Amino acid sequence: MPVSTQPYKGVRDFYPEDKRVQNYIFDVWRKTCESFGYVEYDASVLEPAELYESKTSEEIVNERGDRRVTLRPEMTPTLARMVAARKRDLAFPVRWYSVPNMFRYERPQRGRLREHWQLNADILGSDSLDAEVELISLAVSILDAFGLQRELYEVRVNDRRLLQEVFEKTLTNPEDLSRAMRLLDRSEKDKAADEELRSLLKTPEDISFDMNDSLKTLISKLETRGISNAVFSATLVRGFDYYSGIVFEIFDKHPDNNRAIFGGGRYDNLLELFGEDRVPAVGFGMGDVSLKDVLETYGLLPDFPSTTHLYVVCVSQDVRSDAERVADGLRKQGLNIAVDFTDRKVGDQIKKADKDKIPYVLIVGPDEIASGVFTLKDLQSGEEKKVALADLPSTIRS
Amino acid sequence: MPVSTQPYKGVRDFYPEDKRVQNYIFDVWRKTCESFGYVEYDASVLEPAELYESKTSEEIVNERGDRRVTLRPEMTPTLARMVAARKRDLAFPVRWYSVPNMFRYERPQRGRLREHWQLNADILGSDSLDAEVELISLAVSILDAFGLQRELYEVRVNDRRLLQEVFEKTLTNPEDLSRAMRLLDRSEKDKAADEELRSLLKTPEDISFDMNDSLKTLISKLETRGISNAVFSATLVRGFDYYSGIVFEIFDKHPDNNRAIFGGGRYDNLLELFGEDRVPAVGFGMGDVSLKDVLETYGLLPDFPSTTHLYVVCVSQDVRSDAERVADGLRKQGLNIAVDFTDRKVGDQIKKADKDKIPYVLIVGPDEIASGVFTLKDLQSGEEKKVALADLPSTIRS
Repeated sequence: MPVSTQPYKGVRDFYPEDKRVQNYIFDVWRKTCESFGYVEYDASVLEPAELYESKTSEEIVNERGDRRVTLRPEMTPTLARMVAARKRDLAFPVRWYSVPNMFRYERPQRGRLREHWQLNADILGSDSLDAEVELISLAVSILDAFGLQRELYEVRVNDRRLLQEVFEKTLTNPEDLSRAMRLLDRSEKDKAADEELRSLLKTPEDISFDMNDSLKTLISKLETRGISNAVFSATLVRGFDYYSGIVFEIFDKHPDNNRAIFGGGRYDNLLELFGEDRVPAVGFGMGDVSLKDVLETYGLLPDFPSTTHLYVVCVSQDVRSDAERVADGLRKQGLNIAVDFTDRKVGDQIKKADKDKIPYVLIVGPDEIASGVFTLKDLQSGEEKKVALADLPSTIRS
Repeated sequence: MPVSTQPYKGVRDFYPEDKRVQNYIFDVWRKTCESFGYVEYDASVLEPAELYESKTSEEIVNERGDRRVTLRPEMTPTLARMVAARKRDLAFPVRWYSVPNMFRYERPQRGRLREHWQLNADILGSDSLDAEVELISLAVSILDAFGLQRELYEVRVNDRRLLQEVFEKTLTNPEDLSRAMRLLDRSEKDKAADEELRSLLKTPEDISFDMNDSLKTLISKLETRGISNAVFSATLVRGFDYYSGIVFEIFDKHPDNNRAIFGGGRYDNLLELFGEDRVPAVGFGMGDVSLKDVLETYGLLPDFPSTTHLYVVCVSQDVRSDAERVADGLRKQGLNIAVDFTDRKVGDQIKKADKDKIPYVLIVGPDEIASGVFTLKDLQSGEEKKVALADLPSTIRS
């Protein structure tokens, strides 16, 4: 029986054309985070299972030796673990980012696969609302860099403390708090959840409430930074139990997506898990799968050419070592060059370059070697011109 | 009980200073591969376990649903799977590279951890010895780019077909072939293995043999490309069962390392696993852990500064929004800038920048905002100068 060529269910293969798209997304993430002074960290996808004890992430747990191990379902506990381990050596506040992959075990569907990559950006060591302002500004700058118009989405903000306060007053039974939070999270889209939530309240007809001072200040500070599409969202909860204050998300208003592109919040108590003192923290995550859906919806993903700039076509085998020499010289000037060594017909060599989306072809034969002037073919326009070797880098770059 | 801050045994945390080193290694790998026209692919670290059936990679196998899943122990079977799946659509020969992480379950030791990252570069679809020549040239170019002198290592080459031929003649029992290969692999370093190997032979005193024509041609072609440190190594085997022809490695001659920095070979029959016709292929792998050891041994790892170019120190809170405006303007010109929003003393803000290895500090106070001239401090030299806003990018870049 032959082995299947399919990947494991719910994970992706990245062929070169897919990897170019992913690299584009990662590059924009990295460059924008670094422009705000965030520095990159990383860790293994394998984590001790105890890190997620209070959660239900049991896809790939393996008992071996003395410690249970799992594939990370999210990055924040890893970040908290690393910061806790070096708490005495770090200069706070730290601005860190990472682009890890993470796993969940559920039925794969649009925008939700078993494995995805996620930008995580966090500030640890600041109680100031300026941390929230900066992270939301960073997220908006990232979407600016992708070319996403600000009218297309809104920045939704809420405060877990406000929700807690409201529910403490309105719940018939105070023990229903976390259940009420989960129901509120679904209440806008799910009528049954909304009704169930109301059944828990003393006065079911009224669950409306207003912003607190933190939220008002946050929205006003965002306006000062030029972000005018922030709105209070009374039903915004965000999933993680460790959020302790402001929570926020960027919500895509397009009817085909109509969901969060990124989400985050303040988690001031997570380091206590490691027996460390409180380290106030804020962070957000932005997933590659949902972001790619958004960029596709708005036609913001260009058709990326190959990273190879030039394909060297050899007219005959005897020019091969000269062709390699020409290629090595151009590589030293920063060009990416593949040399065809197959001895196929010139037309077939050009077809290969075209299929691989390599923008230029250079024809090398005995005459070209002798004269130092080569035929350069632009595969997109079909245009051919004679170019001296020294002028090739500038011609290709222009 | 507090949760431990340690990572899972045998895997690494990458703090920003570690990640900078890893990114440097990955960047050199990527740039050099792309300069040779190799394009990047990737896949999930999770693979169906059947992909490694003939091997013993059972660390993290989890049975769930209908398919057994494992963490990949190497990349070549994944590459073969992906190429087999699109065999009809690809333009051969393909030049692909990837920088995947991979896992093995063994006692961690110097240069061998449970997780490492490995550059994989492969050519699929060529029977020509030029494929071997190009991949070895690529590997040597990568080491050139790291600044490793060619005298420090040698390129060892052998041919599995030659070994097979020799053993078919010299083994008392032909069924001992794969056992003999494994013993030969260890025979140079391990006297017991050498003796055991000799015990399997008809004439134990003599296991010396000479190069075949392929090896002679390979070494001569490498010389034409300027690689003169290639040597025939009669005991070179390389671990993988699927190697079917030329095998090669770069061997670091330093007594502290004295082992392979990279290794590879030809595997012409691997796609048959998927019921596909033969696709001739050559590839190599280069691991980040052993490469980092080599670079450290030879003092080739510089002390990398932060990716953040400039730390903006605010003299008082009322200049904060002006400071953010200045920072946003400089970011648009490609500078990476963190703004301090802590309201600490100026000296403490500078200390923070210094600890994070940020090269420059910009002091922003009411006078600077009014005049448009700022104090720029070089934290390495301690030098301070007054710079107009418009001149900052060029001053920092120089």
